[in-house]
Amino acid sequence: MPVTYETLLNSDLPSLRKAVRFGKYTAHTAGLGRGLLQANLAILSKSYALDFMRYCQRNPKPCPLTGVSDTGNPLMFTLGHDIDIRTDVPAYNIYRNGLLDDTVSDISDLWTDDLVAFALGCSFTFEHAIQQAGIPLWHIDNNKTVPMFRSNIDTVPAGPFSGKMVVSMRAIQQSRLAEVVNVSRRYPLAHGAPIHIGDPAEIGIMDIGHTDWGDPAPVGDDQVPVFWACGVTPQVALEAAGLPLCITHKPGYMLITDIAEDAEVPVISAHTPTHDHNQQGEKS
Amino acid sequence: MPVTYETLLNSDLPSLRKAVRFGKYTAHTAGLGRGLLQANLAILSKSYALDFMRYCQRNPKPCPLTGVSDTGNPLMFTLGHDIDIRTDVPAYNIYRNGLLDDTVSDISDLWTDDLVAFALGCSFTFEHAIQQAGIPLWHIDNNKTVPMFRSNIDTVPAGPFSGKMVVSMRAIQQSRLAEVVNVSRRYPLAHGAPIHIGDPAEIGIMDIGHTDWGDPAPVGDDQVPVFWACGVTPQVALEAAGLPLCITHKPGYMLITDIAEDAEVPVISAHTPTHDHNQQGEKS
Repeated sequence: MPVTYETLLNSDLPSLRKAVRFGKYTAHTAGLGRGLLQANLAILSKSYALDFMRYCQRNPKPCPLTGVSDTGNPLMFTLGHDIDIRTDVPAYNIYRNGLLDDTVSDISDLWTDDLVAFALGCSFTFEHAIQQAGIPLWHIDNNKTVPMFRSNIDTVPAGPFSGKMVVSMRAIQQSRLAEVVNVSRRYPLAHGAPIHIGDPAEIGIMDIGHTDWGDPAPVGDDQVPVFWACGVTPQVALEAAGLPLCITHKPGYMLITDIAEDAEVPVISAHTPTHDHNQQGEKS
Repeated sequence: MPVTYETLLNSDLPSLRKAVRFGKYTAHTAGLGRGLLQANLAILSKSYALDFMRYCQRNPKPCPLTGVSDTGNPLMFTLGHDIDIRTDVPAYNIYRNGLLDDTVSDISDLWTDDLVAFALGCSFTFEHAIQQAGIPLWHIDNNKTVPMFRSNIDTVPAGPFSGKMVVSMRAIQQSRLAEVVNVSRRYPLAHGAPIHIGDPAEIGIMDIGHTDWGDPAPVGDDQVPVFWACGVTPQVALEAAGLPLCITHKPGYMLITDIAEDAEVPVISAHTPTHDHNQQGEKS
């Protein structure tokens, strides 16, 4: 029996994870697991893992690395006591040779001893902090997806990974700009401070009404467009690299971790690493 | 002709780097390149690079990764416009099978296409910030090495890398504790906030007068011992792993980068990646 978003809004973490793991919840995770770090996902062959990790280290604002699995071990033990990356994300995109091939809710049959899973911080974290500071975010209040653009800023390449930085835009009142910068800067694992404030043309965005991803959003007369590095950047770099196999989360359908979203370090203290791949429940 | 520490104190970065590169300065770097990020160094075979990078990601407080070279490329182009890791550190320790084998000022003859260089943030950065806040640090004022201890805190393992966390201790006035925590927390790439404040026994240190590395330091009646994660931790993990070859900086003899020590991200914006290994000057 499926579980509704409304039910999960008030669920504890074990119930939430169980609903996702057993395929009873396969929708977006915005607002779920309040206070917990959510993460983007990229799974790839160990042959590309070192280069991808270098790409993340060199581009920490679009690609803030929050966790890396052992090769072949689907249990992401640094991010939670019981996270199985094969089942614990509501929806996965499967890319083959750089092209989207399928979207599924379980990748148990695709997981092999060759794979490494990467978790990357996402914007939910700093958006919560901005909202808690009493600053409204239009796309959330209007139930839209944040506007995203391909900028003209080059990322620093590593191996087969390169490309332009994707940015997200939020319109902020002029009087609250400094506050928004200070608040988001406190979350280096969630894109940190803005990458650009003001004229979109300066970073190669010619028409702010025409988004590359997400929905357009208005910029009021007393507002300034503020641009943050966006987690779509590594997705674009992965697609362009054209790896034989790459698995990501479906955008908006994130991994919910055990880590507090304001944690200084995204690692649980009492970890229990294990290489037993078969002890976890499978989705039915 | 050797260059003295006093001369380099007032030198610009190109002169400083040249003195180190050409073997004219082979001593410690504390206080040099004021305002620039200094880094610990670890060089190892690409066969261990992914596991070492995972070890750093899982233990970011003792092992804050600030740069990773391409495999076989000695130019660390994310940390500076002209950094050759074979020559630009004043002194290197060469470990073979986990044992210190030699200390040299140039590793050009040891560098191969198999090697990867890692730069890790060091405590100089947050110490400067604490001093600038007007809080005295005894070991600096008395020209001693900070006291360091092997704690009972386990690091999170990755492949062959594991071990207890090494911590450094600074005695801080009770009234300035909160300030010290807040200041150091702002530098996640330089060990961040303290790992422990107060009773040394709680983290397995039975006699604060008996250091495992560095010099003992007094703790005054109105002071509290404050412990930070220490960059000796990865050195100990590397020694214990017993790799056939591992090259580190000689403690205190750091890599001076082009990056401002308060930079949000340790990556230069206008990078010029190059794989030409032979364009750099060699030490004479």
